[in-house]
Amino acid sequence: MTTTPPDSATPDPAATPIVGIIMGGQSDLRVMNAAAEMLRQFQVPYELTLVSPHRTPHRLVEYAESARKRGLRVLIAGGGGAAHLPGMAAAFTTIPVIGVPINVPTSIGGLDSILSMLQMPTGVPVATVAVDGAANAAVLAVQMLALGNARLADALEKYRGALRDKVMRTVDELRKGGLDDI
Amino acid sequence: MTTTPPDSATPDPAATPIVGIIMGGQSDLRVMNAAAEMLRQFQVPYELTLVSPHRTPHRLVEYAESARKRGLRVLIAGGGGAAHLPGMAAAFTTIPVIGVPINVPTSIGGLDSILSMLQMPTGVPVATVAVDGAANAAVLAVQMLALGNARLADALEKYRGALRDKVMRTVDELRKGGLDDI
Amino acid sequence: MTTTPPDSATPDPAATPIVGIIMGGQSDLRVMNAAAEMLRQFQVPYELTLVSPHRTPHRLVEYAESARKRGLRVLIAGGGGAAHLPGMAAAFTTIPVIGVPINVPTSIGGLDSILSMLQMPTGVPVATVAVDGAANAAVLAVQMLALGNARLADALEKYRGALRDKVMRTVDELRKGGLDDI
Amino acid sequence: MTTTPPDSATPDPAATPIVGIIMGGQSDLRVMNAAAEMLRQFQVPYELTLVSPHRTPHRLVEYAESARKRGLRVLIAGGGGAAHLPGMAAAFTTIPVIGVPINVPTSIGGLDSILSMLQMPTGVPVATVAVDGAANAAVLAVQMLALGNARLADALEKYRGALRDKVMRTVDELRKGGLDDI
Amino acid sequence: MTTTPPDSATPDPAATPIVGIIMGGQSDLRVMNAAAEMLRQFQVPYELTLVSPHRTPHRLVEYAESARKRGLRVLIAGGGGAAHLPGMAAAFTTIPVIGVPINVPTSIGGLDSILSMLQMPTGVPVATVAVDGAANAAVLAVQMLALGNARLADALEKYRGALRDKVMRTVDELRKGGLDDI
Amino acid sequence: MTTTPPDSATPDPAATPIVGIIMGGQSDLRVMNAAAEMLRQFQVPYELTLVSPHRTPHRLVEYAESARKRGLRVLIAGGGGAAHLPGMAAAFTTIPVIGVPINVPTSIGGLDSILSMLQMPTGVPVATVAVDGAANAAVLAVQMLALGNARLADALEKYRGALRDKVMRTVDELRKGGLDDI
Amino acid sequence: MTTTPPDSATPDPAATPIVGIIMGGQSDLRVMNAAAEMLRQFQVPYELTLVSPHRTPHRLVEYAESARKRGLRVLIAGGGGAAHLPGMAAAFTTIPVIGVPINVPTSIGGLDSILSMLQMPTGVPVATVAVDGAANAAVLAVQMLALGNARLADALEKYRGALRDKVMRTVDELRKGGLDDI
Amino acid sequence: MTTTPPDSATPDPAATPIVGIIMGGQSDLRVMNAAAEMLRQFQVPYELTLVSPHRTPHRLVEYAESARKRGLRVLIAGGGGAAHLPGMAAAFTTIPVIGVPINVPTSIGGLDSILSMLQMPTGVPVATVAVDGAANAAVLAVQMLALGNARLADALEKYRGALRDKVMRTVDELRKGGLDDI
Repeated sequence: MTTTPPDSATPDPAATPIVGIIMGGQSDLRVMNAAAEMLRQFQVPYELTLVSPHRTPHRLVEYAESARKRGLRVLIAGGGGAAHLPGMAAAFTTIPVIGVPINVPTSIGGLDSILSMLQMPTGVPVATVAVDGAANAAVLAVQMLALGNARLADALEKYRGALRDKVMRTVDELRKGGLDDI
Repeated sequence: MTTTPPDSATPDPAATPIVGIIMGGQSDLRVMNAAAEMLRQFQVPYELTLVSPHRTPHRLVEYAESARKRGLRVLIAGGGGAAHLPGMAAAFTTIPVIGVPINVPTSIGGLDSILSMLQMPTGVPVATVAVDGAANAAVLAVQMLALGNARLADALEKYRGALRDKVMRTVDELRKGGLDDI
Repeated sequence: MTTTPPDSATPDPAATPIVGIIMGGQSDLRVMNAAAEMLRQFQVPYELTLVSPHRTPHRLVEYAESARKRGLRVLIAGGGGAAHLPGMAAAFTTIPVIGVPINVPTSIGGLDSILSMLQMPTGVPVATVAVDGAANAAVLAVQMLALGNARLADALEKYRGALRDKVMRTVDELRKGGLDDI
Repeated sequence: MTTTPPDSATPDPAATPIVGIIMGGQSDLRVMNAAAEMLRQFQVPYELTLVSPHRTPHRLVEYAESARKRGLRVLIAGGGGAAHLPGMAAAFTTIPVIGVPINVPTSIGGLDSILSMLQMPTGVPVATVAVDGAANAAVLAVQMLALGNARLADALEKYRGALRDKVMRTVDELRKGGLDDI
Repeated sequence: MTTTPPDSATPDPAATPIVGIIMGGQSDLRVMNAAAEMLRQFQVPYELTLVSPHRTPHRLVEYAESARKRGLRVLIAGGGGAAHLPGMAAAFTTIPVIGVPINVPTSIGGLDSILSMLQMPTGVPVATVAVDGAANAAVLAVQMLALGNARLADALEKYRGALRDKVMRTVDELRKGGLDDI
Repeated sequence: MTTTPPDSATPDPAATPIVGIIMGGQSDLRVMNAAAEMLRQFQVPYELTLVSPHRTPHRLVEYAESARKRGLRVLIAGGGGAAHLPGMAAAFTTIPVIGVPINVPTSIGGLDSILSMLQMPTGVPVATVAVDGAANAAVLAVQMLALGNARLADALEKYRGALRDKVMRTVDELRKGGLDDI
Repeated sequence: MTTTPPDSATPDPAATPIVGIIMGGQSDLRVMNAAAEMLRQFQVPYELTLVSPHRTPHRLVEYAESARKRGLRVLIAGGGGAAHLPGMAAAFTTIPVIGVPINVPTSIGGLDSILSMLQMPTGVPVATVAVDGAANAAVLAVQMLALGNARLADALEKYRGALRDKVMRTVDELRKGGLDDI
Repeated sequence: MTTTPPDSATPDPAATPIVGIIMGGQSDLRVMNAAAEMLRQFQVPYELTLVSPHRTPHRLVEYAESARKRGLRVLIAGGGGAAHLPGMAAAFTTIPVIGVPINVPTSIGGLDSILSMLQMPTGVPVATVAVDGAANAAVLAVQMLALGNARLADALEKYRGALRDKVMRTVDELRKGGLDDI
């Protein structure tokens, strides 16, 4: 991570990824790309790929088991329906796994995705975020990485400031009446 | 299976199991024992053991992958909460996997267990039965095995007859007024 | 089944069906056709028809009771709302019945269809699959039939391989950046 | 019905039943007895028996099909879980069928019983009442019968008066402070 | 009712209505018109109007209290959200009240409408039908009226036959392959 | 209200009630007494009585319609199941009505009570509080009354201080280790 | 409030707002504008602005703490998902807070918004209204303000009358057949 | 953390806490103590205290805002009902916040607690774990801390090994028949 120049807008493509973003199918990209985008914004090197727990189960074992050795420090795993990817990845590694429930068309209101990630047994937690919350999963990953990285800790404070500023700009527009006819 | 004497009340302990009953933890035995009991009633040789998808994930891989070779023809897998056992077992074998959602104390009304089994992606189904329906899972396993086994097909018809008779005995008692003061 | 030529892309139309695909109404065809398509892919002779439990209840009795005699070995029954078809078919036969909950427009998030199939009493199970999971119901039927059919057992392994390969092709595309702008 | 003496506290046991109270299993008696008790209070001749849709499906067909001929004018059918009894009874008769969802221990909060009764397709309705609402099912049956029976119409008005009076007695006790320390 | 000519396609407009179809707002007409249409098909004289329990509560009291005297024998009441109309109408009359839960845009998956009709206290039942099940509410009303009307009892049997025939026509088309490409 | 002596621990029994606490049945007292207790603590004169929307509907009309004239300024209405009391009271008065959903034994997880209060149509709101939240309903009533009553505004601030102090006392005990062995 | 001329169609823009309408994000305006519109109709001076509990938490503290001092008498707070705004605003003030659950696209059927407002602990209530019920929140605010304002009490009665009249006009149109073809 | 002797069974009481365990009320201790116990097992210095978001909101602001400065690196926040503590703590700090939904008696099946933690807006995530999953929250905290601490990374591997061994011991007992009569 020390090789990432602080002024670069995107992470050095040659840098070793420290966050792995995984999902079961191509259709999940629609949601999970937001995690990649957020990590790029924080200049955190990541990799994004498909790991289907049910269609490529051996790939899941290998991916999760080798994650730490390959330098990954956090996994972000998205899935819909019976979403086993985050929980099973967590079973094969001890680095933190963040779960993103995805509201697929055949989902039961998103509840299936949430509950099959959240309700993990003692010893193997999944840090579950909101339905379709891939961007927030990335923010959470950055918060974890920032525990040992002052640049990221600063970047998080700036990011929060930017969120606050955006709200305040709308507050100003409302005050001036600029949003009257919405 | 042909080695099982048809008049034996319990399966020959030396017979090779053809159904594997698995669950994640010891507390699931309370529910899953009913599957074993039902299989004994049908004289179907089975094995019953613990395979935790999250605490012994490699055991899960080995168990499911070797199932067919070891002679198992159907798996019955129970679990509560984020119940990944049936779905992940199904990912490592192509023999049918029957899922039994277990209503553990911290379950969300049983819905978490149901949905994390039922909502599997195309290609890797789990035959899900009712909450705590371990006995029914065994009946379903027998129905599958009976496709190639005339003794079991007959036994199923007799079992249905017995269920019917039991209802009819209560019908008679009600007619005679014997259940009036329940 | 032995009459089906192994090299035929579709099952011999003259072959006796061994899987019955049934549903309550014409609108269910939208979902249930996927079961037929999957069975054709596996060269499993099937029949597909309407059996409404509430509008043609006698047809249901006759269909389910005669199923085994007519050579059917597995039933796939789809339904929405108060979906009684799989459970009532199961009451009139002992061959396995697979239930496909259908998410009709007036459904309560699909939960009504799921629960009225899944929650069957002991003795009469329904092997319930995911909401709108007709294709998976067919895969499960093939898994059951493969217990006594080596060709189908092989075909299932190849099918799983094809699912795996499809994931790996997307993995490759992602690696090359070909899916960057999705 | 005209043979029931108006001053009798219980219906003439020799009178032909005009309401059939049915349920799938003996454990449902705990709930369904309240329907019988309410009908006795209204001096409506009834019969109460077991008809299991899944364990005695032929009995269901015969019971429902012969109901009208045997003089039954309304059916009250209770069930838990995948509660198919009222809906399937309704498929075999055109007399009104009232459904009582029963909250069995393995029920999903009662929702499975409710939805598998309520969500019937057009043409075959089930008049569903509250969970465990057997007494109310009987009141509803009396309301239907009262359409052609002045004695029952009067009895219903008196019953409503009694309900009102019971509330008013509690109102009085509260006014006097008699319920202060509850 | 005896004044309705048996050969008339629509009920005599001058005939006294015997079914009252009521709803809280104009937007409910979209759903509730199906009840009127079904009653016309059975030549049952009805009236259809708005009675808002919350916006015209006195009208509700008057409507329900006078219903029996004005010749109404059954009420069909539809509503969405906190759907109090059927339950409160039932509180002011002892003729049967059928409730139609309407799935309005701000509804919680239809559950709010179902539960605020279904879960009535003992003594004041609402015969609840499926979400948006206005047509079925009308069939249920006809079933109640047919208890004392042979023409309607016959019409119901014919209607059931028509439902059956429609399913069988689709069965035939499927057999001929006419629905292959749906 | 000005007649209530500020130093009195309980409201003057002769004072005109300004809050009406109503519920449908005696069993609701178990929950609703907490509202009375909280109002006594704030020295707000109240009345508590039964008004069953379904068993004493005319009493509901009279109670709600006369509420304002009799000096009541806020209504607190509790109910379980199809809980129509708050919504129907609100239909007959324009003083604020606070709804307390009660989790009765036959409730669907409390959701029926919540949704049949909360989901009111535009124009006739019910201020719904938590399940079994009768004490909070009283606090909300006091907050409304405090808009025009400085003593109550002060009392609310003191009450909040007391809540805060109670938390802080536990904080202190935890600090000292006094709660170690809980 | 006494400075608002009774004949003015909109509140005097110079008048001190007495209701604060707040929400977490600009997208909530779509729903919350209805509260503003309703307050304008009642000529109640209000302010509408953004206060994000998670992005501008200090603004939330300041806004809620200063609310009373700045003359605000009621807060209306809307939010979706984990909707903390009404509950946290209520923690920093003792004026009544009305919560409007907003059904955002990633909401779990609206239940997340409802439950994270409704289920407040004793001492800090939120008066929760229907999903997307911003207009009704404003009516509830007016009902609270009317406790000390005769003009508003009158206006509420007139508003109710207008609601009633609108229903009655549709009743007339239905009577004349003008809505036949809807 | 480097001051904690590796051979100590409990963390040095003088060590600066690096995990803060907070909850809203004393009754939450029943669940949240499991987090403390797990952290002691990993020799991670922690503090445990009450921070009520609604009763001590200023304490919440101070606690969360000062957390990083005081050396805390992760917060574990538990709550039931409208559980605002984790989300609001997260609003005032950028260190990771883990949420533990607590199934309190008046909870709606635990869903209220889950959803009011999980469904946070972009920018302010809460890492939500299972209902009553305080022990797992501690494991997740250790996983985060282990990103920069080799001792903890090792301890986690050993802990996983212990979980695996415990399962395998039960597997052995089952094999020997020692659990036969459970």
